[in-house]
Amino acid sequence: MKWLFEHYATHLLESVTAGVIEVKDFDELKLRSGEVKGKIVLFNRPIDAGLVNTFSGYGGAVNQRGFGAIQAARFGAVAVLIRSVTTKMDDNVPHVGSMYYADTIPKIPSAAIGSLDADFLSDAIRNDISLKVSIKFNCRTLPDIQSYNVIGEITGSEYPKEVIVVGGHYDSWDKGDGAHDDASGCLQSMEVLNLLKRLDIKPKRTIRCVFFINEENGVRGGRAYGTYADTIKEKHIAAIESDRGAFTPRGFYVGADSLKILKIQSWLPVLKKSLIDWVEKGGGGVDISFIKNAEAQIGYVPDAQRYMDVHHSANDTFESVHPREMELGSAAITILAYLLSEEGF
Amino acid sequence: MKWLFEHYATHLLESVTAGVIEVKDFDELKLRSGEVKGKIVLFNRPIDAGLVNTFSGYGGAVNQRGFGAIQAARFGAVAVLIRSVTTKMDDNVPHVGSMYYADTIPKIPSAAIGSLDADFLSDAIRNDISLKVSIKFNCRTLPDIQSYNVIGEITGSEYPKEVIVVGGHYDSWDKGDGAHDDASGCLQSMEVLNLLKRLDIKPKRTIRCVFFINEENGVRGGRAYGTYADTIKEKHIAAIESDRGAFTPRGFYVGADSLKILKIQSWLPVLKKSLIDWVEKGGGGVDISFIKNAEAQIGYVPDAQRYMDVHHSANDTFESVHPREMELGSAAITILAYLLSEEGF
Repeated sequence: MKWLFEHYATHLLESVTAGVIEVKDFDELKLRSGEVKGKIVLFNRPIDAGLVNTFSGYGGAVNQRGFGAIQAARFGAVAVLIRSVTTKMDDNVPHVGSMYYADTIPKIPSAAIGSLDADFLSDAIRNDISLKVSIKFNCRTLPDIQSYNVIGEITGSEYPKEVIVVGGHYDSWDKGDGAHDDASGCLQSMEVLNLLKRLDIKPKRTIRCVFFINEENGVRGGRAYGTYADTIKEKHIAAIESDRGAFTPRGFYVGADSLKILKIQSWLPVLKKSLIDWVEKGGGGVDISFIKNAEAQIGYVPDAQRYMDVHHSANDTFESVHPREMELGSAAITILAYLLSEEGF
Repeated sequence: MKWLFEHYATHLLESVTAGVIEVKDFDELKLRSGEVKGKIVLFNRPIDAGLVNTFSGYGGAVNQRGFGAIQAARFGAVAVLIRSVTTKMDDNVPHVGSMYYADTIPKIPSAAIGSLDADFLSDAIRNDISLKVSIKFNCRTLPDIQSYNVIGEITGSEYPKEVIVVGGHYDSWDKGDGAHDDASGCLQSMEVLNLLKRLDIKPKRTIRCVFFINEENGVRGGRAYGTYADTIKEKHIAAIESDRGAFTPRGFYVGADSLKILKIQSWLPVLKKSLIDWVEKGGGGVDISFIKNAEAQIGYVPDAQRYMDVHHSANDTFESVHPREMELGSAAITILAYLLSEEGF
């Protein structure tokens, strides 16, 4: 089955009025499949707030948004409403994000609603089983236009063909400013070059800042850079991605063999000056995952307790970024990029 | 010389109108001492924003607030204004705190002003050396009244006379709610008992929650508990204080011999579940510093990048505390208190 990757919410301009059935997950949907035909399905499973790792919480709830429309349409639903996938349970701000259609299943409209609205609607359904809900959709997917990654670098003084990529993505969801996701990741990557320049440091290897385009809606910038990396006569020593918000530094995830991880761990006494406390095996980031020949794919990991409060929503504003926290991230990534440039593997 | 510990700002009700002289520090004040007589002195040295450790930044600037009135009065000043000791440079919220008088030096009034007002006043002085400023003080120190520490405990099932204290202080400065400083420390300490009770855990040693009174203005609650601890037939295994805000956990400072620190470090794999990344030699906290017979004085250390934004000001509100971050602190302190209760040293 082929998934069609489409802008969220639906590409259709339409209004829907129908009764609502609330479910927690796809298992409950299947058990109650006989009640779904002609209805709006409310997927109302919150993030598990008991998980310390908010990304795990997100991962445990986001399938409702990603695949809810497909699963509900199988049983004849006319639309879906998704409880926002967020840790913020006390506001009413919708959190959006990618969702999928299948080419063999009717494409029904889908929209995220705020936590308080989800609670309100859930109560209303419980109190009145004949309740009807009207939804008016006014979003649509416009035709693709040509766009670009934005790239700047300091060419290596000794090994110009050996490259360390530092990057974030400069597209964002249309709610809020996309300040944490991922304007700040771009700024931090740009700051790597700026800080080295201000300190008059000429790195041995090339340090390249990449603003990836279209991470949120197909990762086409990341894919395009990956294709470039596959074909060019350069060696990618490492790629570092900042795409987990601009909060205080905690660590780096490193996707590499264990000797390379050990080498980076040996730099912890220096990294700790920017509040990096650990280096562990883990994933780098969506955009850099296409740089398959990189010897290390590295993900910058800031504190994550507030990230899902703002993620993909109108809460993700300039004001929600704390200058000191963002700057410490710039420092952490700069130190790591510099050491990789000096030492290689 | 005897320091008198008094409520900030002054105990005097008075109005002052005078010219202003701006200085960065006590050295500059001394160099320009001939210009000070009859003037208001503006101490205008901000926290060094380049320091990663905001407590070090605070420590480098707070002498203006603590001793500015004494130093300025030596040279005949009639009042002092202090640039707020804060990392928040883009609002105008005054940050207050303790200050001192000496019994041999005239007690002149002293007040904190917000960062923007300090910048504004500095510009105004530069542009008009004949500038006069009027200050009206309406604060005063009321007589002492009897107050109390608040104490609750789960008595140890095997060693009831061996005690682990967990505590914060429940007084605060009159601006804001004192939410981070230190209502949240009290809540986290209370949560230690609550969490153990909910989990039906009966600790081997006594775990005692203490809300200390009067930390901000003489530490008389901490001193009183210390006197109690000196005289009672109990062994204080450890005292843990939470008084650095309610942000995401980072580590614990431990004041103890190196073997005890090593023992606590061996628990890091468990502590890490609450995002504690390190255990290092360091100070416990002001209140527990008077429990001199405690085998370990332990300070809970959350992330500190936002703390001095809110500290001792109207910014220190309920809303500035993030529930997940505070709860993780409760978890961290509970895990440590429980392990100390089970294992001792």
